[in-house]
Amino acid sequence: MRVLAVAAHPDDLELLCGGTLARLAAEGHAVTMCNVCAGDRGSFVHSSEEIRAIRLQEARRAAEIGGAAHVSLGIPDGEADGSDPEQRWLVIDLIRRTRPQLVLTHAEGDYMRDHNEVSRLVVDASFTATLPLLETDAPHHDEVAAVYHFDTVAGVGFSPTEYVDVSDHIETKLAMLGAHDSQLSWLREHDGVDIVEQARIASAYRGFQSGVAYAEGFAPCRTWLRNRTVRLLP
Amino acid sequence: MRVLAVAAHPDDLELLCGGTLARLAAEGHAVTMCNVCAGDRGSFVHSSEEIRAIRLQEARRAAEIGGAAHVSLGIPDGEADGSDPEQRWLVIDLIRRTRPQLVLTHAEGDYMRDHNEVSRLVVDASFTATLPLLETDAPHHDEVAAVYHFDTVAGVGFSPTEYVDVSDHIETKLAMLGAHDSQLSWLREHDGVDIVEQARIASAYRGFQSGVAYAEGFAPCRTWLRNRTVRLLP
Amino acid sequence: MRVLAVAAHPDDLELLCGGTLARLAAEGHAVTMCNVCAGDRGSFVHSSEEIRAIRLQEARRAAEIGGAAHVSLGIPDGEADGSDPEQRWLVIDLIRRTRPQLVLTHAEGDYMRDHNEVSRLVVDASFTATLPLLETDAPHHDEVAAVYHFDTVAGVGFSPTEYVDVSDHIETKLAMLGAHDSQLSWLREHDGVDIVEQARIASAYRGFQSGVAYAEGFAPCRTWLRNRTVRLLP
Amino acid sequence: MRVLAVAAHPDDLELLCGGTLARLAAEGHAVTMCNVCAGDRGSFVHSSEEIRAIRLQEARRAAEIGGAAHVSLGIPDGEADGSDPEQRWLVIDLIRRTRPQLVLTHAEGDYMRDHNEVSRLVVDASFTATLPLLETDAPHHDEVAAVYHFDTVAGVGFSPTEYVDVSDHIETKLAMLGAHDSQLSWLREHDGVDIVEQARIASAYRGFQSGVAYAEGFAPCRTWLRNRTVRLLP
Amino acid sequence: MRVLAVAAHPDDLELLCGGTLARLAAEGHAVTMCNVCAGDRGSFVHSSEEIRAIRLQEARRAAEIGGAAHVSLGIPDGEADGSDPEQRWLVIDLIRRTRPQLVLTHAEGDYMRDHNEVSRLVVDASFTATLPLLETDAPHHDEVAAVYHFDTVAGVGFSPTEYVDVSDHIETKLAMLGAHDSQLSWLREHDGVDIVEQARIASAYRGFQSGVAYAEGFAPCRTWLRNRTVRLLP
Amino acid sequence: MRVLAVAAHPDDLELLCGGTLARLAAEGHAVTMCNVCAGDRGSFVHSSEEIRAIRLQEARRAAEIGGAAHVSLGIPDGEADGSDPEQRWLVIDLIRRTRPQLVLTHAEGDYMRDHNEVSRLVVDASFTATLPLLETDAPHHDEVAAVYHFDTVAGVGFSPTEYVDVSDHIETKLAMLGAHDSQLSWLREHDGVDIVEQARIASAYRGFQSGVAYAEGFAPCRTWLRNRTVRLLP
Repeated sequence: MRVLAVAAHPDDLELLCGGTLARLAAEGHAVTMCNVCAGDRGSFVHSSEEIRAIRLQEARRAAEIGGAAHVSLGIPDGEADGSDPEQRWLVIDLIRRTRPQLVLTHAEGDYMRDHNEVSRLVVDASFTATLPLLETDAPHHDEVAAVYHFDTVAGVGFSPTEYVDVSDHIETKLAMLGAHDSQLSWLREHDGVDIVEQARIASAYRGFQSGVAYAEGFAPCRTWLRNRTVRLLP
Repeated sequence: MRVLAVAAHPDDLELLCGGTLARLAAEGHAVTMCNVCAGDRGSFVHSSEEIRAIRLQEARRAAEIGGAAHVSLGIPDGEADGSDPEQRWLVIDLIRRTRPQLVLTHAEGDYMRDHNEVSRLVVDASFTATLPLLETDAPHHDEVAAVYHFDTVAGVGFSPTEYVDVSDHIETKLAMLGAHDSQLSWLREHDGVDIVEQARIASAYRGFQSGVAYAEGFAPCRTWLRNRTVRLLP
Repeated sequence: MRVLAVAAHPDDLELLCGGTLARLAAEGHAVTMCNVCAGDRGSFVHSSEEIRAIRLQEARRAAEIGGAAHVSLGIPDGEADGSDPEQRWLVIDLIRRTRPQLVLTHAEGDYMRDHNEVSRLVVDASFTATLPLLETDAPHHDEVAAVYHFDTVAGVGFSPTEYVDVSDHIETKLAMLGAHDSQLSWLREHDGVDIVEQARIASAYRGFQSGVAYAEGFAPCRTWLRNRTVRLLP
Repeated sequence: MRVLAVAAHPDDLELLCGGTLARLAAEGHAVTMCNVCAGDRGSFVHSSEEIRAIRLQEARRAAEIGGAAHVSLGIPDGEADGSDPEQRWLVIDLIRRTRPQLVLTHAEGDYMRDHNEVSRLVVDASFTATLPLLETDAPHHDEVAAVYHFDTVAGVGFSPTEYVDVSDHIETKLAMLGAHDSQLSWLREHDGVDIVEQARIASAYRGFQSGVAYAEGFAPCRTWLRNRTVRLLP
Repeated sequence: MRVLAVAAHPDDLELLCGGTLARLAAEGHAVTMCNVCAGDRGSFVHSSEEIRAIRLQEARRAAEIGGAAHVSLGIPDGEADGSDPEQRWLVIDLIRRTRPQLVLTHAEGDYMRDHNEVSRLVVDASFTATLPLLETDAPHHDEVAAVYHFDTVAGVGFSPTEYVDVSDHIETKLAMLGAHDSQLSWLREHDGVDIVEQARIASAYRGFQSGVAYAEGFAPCRTWLRNRTVRLLP
Repeated sequence: MRVLAVAAHPDDLELLCGGTLARLAAEGHAVTMCNVCAGDRGSFVHSSEEIRAIRLQEARRAAEIGGAAHVSLGIPDGEADGSDPEQRWLVIDLIRRTRPQLVLTHAEGDYMRDHNEVSRLVVDASFTATLPLLETDAPHHDEVAAVYHFDTVAGVGFSPTEYVDVSDHIETKLAMLGAHDSQLSWLREHDGVDIVEQARIASAYRGFQSGVAYAEGFAPCRTWLRNRTVRLLP
């Protein structure tokens, strides 16, 4: 199965569905991790250009640890926009090039706009990518991929309808997250949190909810053409 | 896998999840269909005693068509009650004797009280059946079974979170429902509906929603100890 | 049209849908107002027996002002119970004797148990009353009546889906409520409110929401057999 | 009554509220059907220009069968946008020219972005069209029209709060839908569905929910100035 | 302030709001912890009589650690019932004797029936306890106390609307929970969980959501007479 | 505490949270009232330029009565847009210059687009304002402020989770609203309402819900970084 996971910033995927991605890759699926934004506005010590380069390296390293390919769309932080034609076409093209059966992305209602706009971009593109007369660089995709939303940060306002057991992949998940050195410093200073510790707690919490040591929670995007009668999650 | 499906009246299971039960049985699972109520108050032509006997026969025949065992708890129609100790103990005992990994039952919010009370009885019993010091005729069950709610009648107010493809079992489903001769007459007269035709339409509608010819919709009972990280539905 | 409005206590109907009842009666419909409870436990000055008698008189007077018939089922305050067989049979019988096309009752989620239990009793009975083999003193009703829930007290947690313009009946509504002298004193002392003033404010508020001077809000009980394709409210 | 129905693409109105439009027209109301998008990107055989012309013809024919006027705003498929000033002004002008008392449009949460954006455009314009100092080619409308949302495709995630009996207009509805020859081919190939058959099933399903042979479901847009105390639907 | 916390079983309060209770007590409020059930059916090694006695001792010890008084109503496990007159009168009397301004209890929708029935008993009694003509051993309470629901077990389906910072009381909370030796063994065997570890994780998770080290989540029971314009939680 | 209240048009804040603002100011907090739009399109008698100037004067007078500072962002009515970079940067800058701990703004789902877009702009900016590498004229804010949504107009679809007692400030609230002479005329003519009278009714209604004479209702924006464990509202 081809899996495409799309989040706003480097480290979002690792935090919110890194265990599932690692498990999918370990089970032989082709996983692509994409960051729509460049991570270029969260630093107290670097310039935008510097932090953008640093975070790209970190994101690539994290994907490598998880056994996934990595793509960055390079939009500046804070400027993801579900109504922007250029961004819409970028995401459509991303889907056409990766041709996923399963797409993972943010849920709407998360704490920052970029997350919610990426969610809109991806849900939209999962359909629009199939229209033959809407031309981008790649040919149209031949199916409307199933889309699953992963957890919000800290799980606020999110009720999973499906859980994935990531007990065997929790250390990989934390290692993926740990690759984001610069971001760990930023979050410690900007938000007062140790995000690796929080990832462990959140995964244990979702595990407690579903009867395993560590889990991640998801909710499918339920609409016509995206519903499935089989479980695509591992 | 041992599967226990519990509904209020003879014909409810056939209408609301008959295709899934037939599919589970066809795939080799041990399926038990249970009616809590006797079906003894819905007739313009028979006495309670007569219609109770007729419907028990019809329900057995339907279960046989579906490849399932059949149990009736014999509560009079209209008197299912989630707070009644005797009924609670009956359902606990049912679970202990059948020892299911998967339980299917009504969703709350359906059009008649018996459905909603049965839902409460079953969700409650799925936990209570595991308490060793609560004694009934059978030993306590060794796990809190996963509970899935099936559709309401006509689907009003119900949003499936999982779908089962029953395209290969639709004729079996309709045959199961068709075994309820006396009920088909009653519903034609009391509610003005041809329930077999409606079953086909409802299954096609849920199929349209999920991309197959015929489907049935479900929503898991989401609580601690009942959540699972695997899909138990076929 | 025959209309049956069922609430827990004397004064509930007047407060929550009195304008609609007055309008229905004024437009020629046969309206019956029923209190399930006797109003026998809310007094700092009277005994239960005294206040029960006083409130029955007041309720009859209010119904008379509204142009409606009045029935009391006489259950003690605090003891309405949707699972009690005797009460269930009482309400079934009430429906069979009044044979309504339209039933109005409390919404679940109101501030006191009696309201919520009455709601359960009425929704249940609207179906059960049609079963020929469930015998009470009256013959079975020939249709599952449409059921509408009226507002909660103070409108907390209630979102109307239909509004009735009661601008021409607001004075009648307030007069109906004003007939409950003893209750007005009780609520002033027990809850610190002038309920007639509050009724005017609440009706003006629902009117503001729906573009008229005074309105009352309702939400139909949406289930199979209770849905309608026509509006029954005036 | 003047009725304006606005959907994204040719065939959406026919599928989702065609029976209601036919009934409104048959009852003497002035019905205008508007497609915001041109239907110019869904074809495996035609160019955009060709399919745009074909579908305009089909849409006009469908409106004619339904007894309605037809308007197309000509936005390319996939590009409806509730934040686009030009599109907003187009829809405001549409409302000012048709001066509806009743507006029907998509619900948010449907499977494709165009539907949701059209919903936003129309709800917005129903108010904005009344502002005298916002100038377009037509004078401001003199009331904020009531807005009703019609069903989503396949009804996923949509719970009707009002139903319209279209039993006497089901054949007209299917004929209207049948006029979209090119679209029927496209949907058969792109989505694997026979949309005319699905329209019949969906209408029968909504009918089953509301006690008639065929029905369509709606939910009013509930906000200040859009609520009404009368039913505008037939 | 007088605070009354009511849960189903010994250890529920400690797990779900123990930090808040310890903080309230530490800040000088009079806290009473009440278990409705005896904890007499969860043991693989003791008889009902034995485990009932053991758990009463453990619960008293836990309350002592938290600085609270302790009351047990002694209902057998599995038999809490919101419709049972005797239990209703017991809880009404409990409220009348403790005369709380603030009441904490379970949320509905938790994983086992006892929790949900206790929630119903307490919400009901918070009002009914104020009726002078409903006689129990104690005089009626003079206000409808504010009721707050605490978290469900594992937080499934519960969205806090208020958070309490328990960072300074987390060790007390865990010590309170740790007093339940027999229950810790039972949960390890019956449900495969280390509940003390889970309490730490859940508190850290709610803390992560609200910006502190450890927190507990609550949602007020929103109805007329129970709403407040001040925060009663610490 | 520094408080920033942001609404779409002059008079929105006064109507929807004027009592709370007056109370906050009276209690010594620094309150800033901001209108994103100029109020330049709602008049039957003035030109846009005239009405814009008139309403700015009225808004300043209202703020003065309430003891608050006043800011206008000057966007034309109907053109507030949560995706517009220029407007986003304006609101980010507003937050950076006022450095609030508490932000009040519209809830989504209100009757007109400007309200909903302002809500989006403000929630977004409360986070984005803290990014050091996103440069505007002012330095980044040092915390993600708590955001509370105030009521919708007429309260449609809004369920407060917190109430503020404004009984001592109701006359100030009405005086603030009364300062909007030109708007009172417009709403009388355009919408047929006396908005001062409605403000009194709505405040009394929210007071009835929460046990005081006059109240205003709020719901916090619940997300990571915006949740708090203390009550910021008075």
